Amino acid sequence: MPSGKILVAQGGGPTAVINQSLVGVALEARRFRDVRLVYGARHGVRGIVDEDFVDLTQETSHNLELVAATPSSALGSTRDKPDLKYCHEIFEVLRAHEIEHFFYIGGNDSSDTVRIVSEEAQKAGYPLRAIHIPKTIDNDLVGNDHTPGFPSAARFVAQAFAGANLDNAALPGIYVGVVMGRHAGFLTAASALGKKFADDGPHLIYVPERVFEIETFLADVKATYERYGRCVVAVSEGIHDAAGTPILARLANDNKVDLEHDAHGNVQLSGSGALADLLCEEIKSKLKIKRVRGDTFGYLQRSFIGCSSDVDQREAREVGEKAVQFAMWGQNGQMRDGSVAIKRTGFYSVDYELLPLSAVAGKTRTMEDEFLTAAGTDVTDAFRLYLRPLLGSGMPDAYRLRAAPVARVLKV
Amino acid sequence: MPSGKILVAQGGGPTAVINQSLVGVALEARRFRDVRLVYGARHGVRGIVDEDFVDLTQETSHNLELVAATPSSALGSTRDKPDLKYCHEIFEVLRAHEIEHFFYIGGNDSSDTVRIVSEEAQKAGYPLRAIHIPKTIDNDLVGNDHTPGFPSAARFVAQAFAGANLDNAALPGIYVGVVMGRHAGFLTAASALGKKFADDGPHLIYVPERVFEIETFLADVKATYERYGRCVVAVSEGIHDAAGTPILARLANDNKVDLEHDAHGNVQLSGSGALADLLCEEIKSKLKIKRVRGDTFGYLQRSFIGCSSDVDQREAREVGEKAVQFAMWGQNGQMRDGSVAIKRTGFYSVDYELLPLSAVAGKTRTMEDEFLTAAGTDVTDAFRLYLRPLLGSGMPDAYRLRAAPVARVLKV
Repeated sequence: MPSGKILVAQGGGPTAVINQSLVGVALEARRFRDVRLVYGARHGVRGIVDEDFVDLTQETSHNLELVAATPSSALGSTRDKPDLKYCHEIFEVLRAHEIEHFFYIGGNDSSDTVRIVSEEAQKAGYPLRAIHIPKTIDNDLVGNDHTPGFPSAARFVAQAFAGANLDNAALPGIYVGVVMGRHAGFLTAASALGKKFADDGPHLIYVPERVFEIETFLADVKATYERYGRCVVAVSEGIHDAAGTPILARLANDNKVDLEHDAHGNVQLSGSGALADLLCEEIKSKLKIKRVRGDTFGYLQRSFIGCSSDVDQREAREVGEKAVQFAMWGQNGQMRDGSVAIKRTGFYSVDYELLPLSAVAGKTRTMEDEFLTAAGTDVTDAFRLYLRPLLGSGMPDAYRLRAAPVARVLKV
Repeated sequence: MPSGKILVAQGGGPTAVINQSLVGVALEARRFRDVRLVYGARHGVRGIVDEDFVDLTQETSHNLELVAATPSSALGSTRDKPDLKYCHEIFEVLRAHEIEHFFYIGGNDSSDTVRIVSEEAQKAGYPLRAIHIPKTIDNDLVGNDHTPGFPSAARFVAQAFAGANLDNAALPGIYVGVVMGRHAGFLTAASALGKKFADDGPHLIYVPERVFEIETFLADVKATYERYGRCVVAVSEGIHDAAGTPILARLANDNKVDLEHDAHGNVQLSGSGALADLLCEEIKSKLKIKRVRGDTFGYLQRSFIGCSSDVDQREAREVGEKAVQFAMWGQNGQMRDGSVAIKRTGFYSVDYELLPLSAVAGKTRTMEDEFLTAAGTDVTDAFRLYLRPLLGSGMPDAYRLRAAPVARVLKV
């Protein structure tokens, strides 16, 4: 007799809406008579190998709804990237608990974990349905129009730049805002949606999809400053030179600043204000401009409570619900494991499909060429049309005085 | 015959609601038959000496309402701190334009400017009414229960920490958030309002009202980390040692980091991520904790669009309206210059009074002792009661799973 047990977990960086997907799974699953118990693993795959499970079946629907609207991973998350041995351990725990369905909400590393666990189960002849549920503020999952979590983070970035632009207009100078994104510039590019008037910032946008040249950057800033008397710049933390070396690493080396590295030897890009500070220092020393300010949006952009897109909330919920439906019914009657993906079907509407895990796992999407202008320092209208509906309803708007000038009396 | 001209200007750091005060002046003034024209000076006192005026009478009421709801100073602002000569120039321009009422929206430097200009006018026997309208996210004006702009910035800080706490709970480690405030810790202390459950962060709060000892700080962080497996810290940019030296300056000196100084030789505290980075470095190197992340809230906390308190919006509007009424009618029939102040009259309601300019000008309020615990790393219930109503309606809330544990099968 089937155990009727399903397991859900959350991996990688939290988002504003990741709990919608969790609750989507938990509530939808219980509508199926085959499901008896819904477990959640604490802190992602780490909680699976540690058998650190909670029984979500005992949560009230009411509390689940409140948790769904709360940002960050309610089950806790992990940065563990399981290798084959780790995945085998995961599978052994799933088998020991007679888990029949495994849902993992995460980015491309997580989809790769699901892929390997799924293969382990097949090899062992164990009847596991393993489904990856997309989530990442980086928007870098292939096969998806966009990923849950990205719209809300993009909304935060757009609102932040809309405000920073107003502040910079009131007290003119240079403003550099550094946004998360190692390989994909989607989130940084979202800053363009904070722009309303032609002379609004961000005036310059730098993403990892283009090579960053410090000399060109300084020339761009200078030209903008001369034109508008101020300049607002949006920069991805992952900008790099032609050799692929992060600009943060290069400037830090020039300025003898120590940086943190991860287990793979990659420079830790988030969690410090170093890149913004180093870029500001370049501008001050090379362009001799006095008022230069840098902000690093840091964890605020993915964790700030009270700034999410209602479209994102809805879709994050639906990918959770659809994951359960795909697991139970398969896609077009074909029962198989996979990765839930968002497909755009109208302006604006979406549908969901199940992609093979191998089509998503471990791959990274970057910004399409059509989304960036030839100069590479601004987005195209195609990007604006792509992103605008995702930001959701109630986007705050900025207004100006029309400012009819008064004739001078003394200094005529 | 009176000219019927009034002038309004905005000074110092922008806030989320400073345009409410501007629009409060502009719309209320035109209800008086003595007022014919409402001028605005661009970029504060700088615009006055430059005679850079716009005619706000030509704005539509509709657009003024939209501008009122837009953050940052719509007229532009300035960091100029006028000396006696500068104030004399201001007065000469006001006289040349036959300005009869001067309203300056700003912090304590701005109130001092109004005071000097008012004295200049009296000396010259020129009939000027000069009124200071309070504004500052630092909440450091004496004579006020609180200042417009502070509640919205406090709300941003509370929401930011509520989110950062959730993020830190999902991926445990140390998180240091640096908040604006050179002398007054009100805004940093607002982080406590993002706390809900007993083990939520911020676990430690450091404000300029208390001497900051690096050794004590490290011991506090260590103890919290040992207790909760994580630690969220809120720090004012203005924390200093017993000698009054900013901690930023001390750590920067130890680490050979160059800092920017203002015209008065003060270290530039805002606009860089250095303090957060240096504190994180101390924690990493001295406590050997691996996951240590720092964010500097920077300009986001005062400029973010779409995160304001409705109470703040309303009061900022009212101080503008009352300023005009005080100028026209005086307080209790006594016609005189002054500084509009907010007085708390209930839980929660306020009234407004006109204080003598000399009572406010150039003075700095800091956090009252009753608002800080004996240890100095947390706020008291008195502070929570003081701040909560200011944050306004619709504060986002965080919910948790109740997390019923599941028995282990393998590792019993």
